Amino acid sequence: MLEKTTRMNYLYDFYYSLLTEKQQSYMSLYYLDDYSLGEIAEKYEVSRQAVYDNIKRTEAMLEEYEAKLLLFQKFQERQKIAASIRTLIENGSSKEKIFDALTSLEELD
Amino acid sequence: MLEKTTRMNYLYDFYYSLLTEKQQSYMSLYYLDDYSLGEIAEKYEVSRQAVYDNIKRTEAMLEEYEAKLLLFQKFQERQKIAASIRTLIENGSSKEKIFDALTSLEELD
Repeated sequence: MLEKTTRMNYLYDFYYSLLTEKQQSYMSLYYLDDYSLGEIAEKYEVSRQAVYDNIKRTEAMLEEYEAKLLLFQKFQERQKIAASIRTLIENGSSKEKIFDALTSLEELD
Repeated sequence: MLEKTTRMNYLYDFYYSLLTEKQQSYMSLYYLDDYSLGEIAEKYEVSRQAVYDNIKRTEAMLEEYEAKLLLFQKFQERQKIAASIRTLIENGSSKEKIFDALTSLEELD
């Protein structure tokens, strides 16, 4: 569950601009501010079920965007390569190795 | 015009997965394969105007996606920073400077 929350936080971060205002409100209250479904329902004067359905649909949309655009996956890959470049530099590796890693970073786009 | 074509090629590359199949077909024939509107119209047995309208709408959609997600802009910024990291390494700059550049690269995500 924690893993899912972390993933949804990231996906929200990458794709929130593609969501409607209502979707953004519900998602950020639920995932970023840790509101319960009941608390969100009360705040917006809708049923708990309506909030639940909206959030489930939005989660599915975020996963669809990720399947199409891979922004989270590429982000993770870039972080990994950037870390490996740091290690190469720390270890005094050759320019060639560092440049190769930089190239693989550029090609991820 | 060449500049617009280059930009549309990039935007298409970043966001084609969010387009419908028909939009993808028209755009890739027009921008990647350099078909004329008339040739696309003939191929799909529709009017030249229909092709034109579809492509104009798709171009506007690509610009909207870019305004929201900034993938092309971030791509360009990353390319610039990666190039500056190469220069820093070529010039034997300090680890600190290189690490700072790497950090700014990571923070672009």
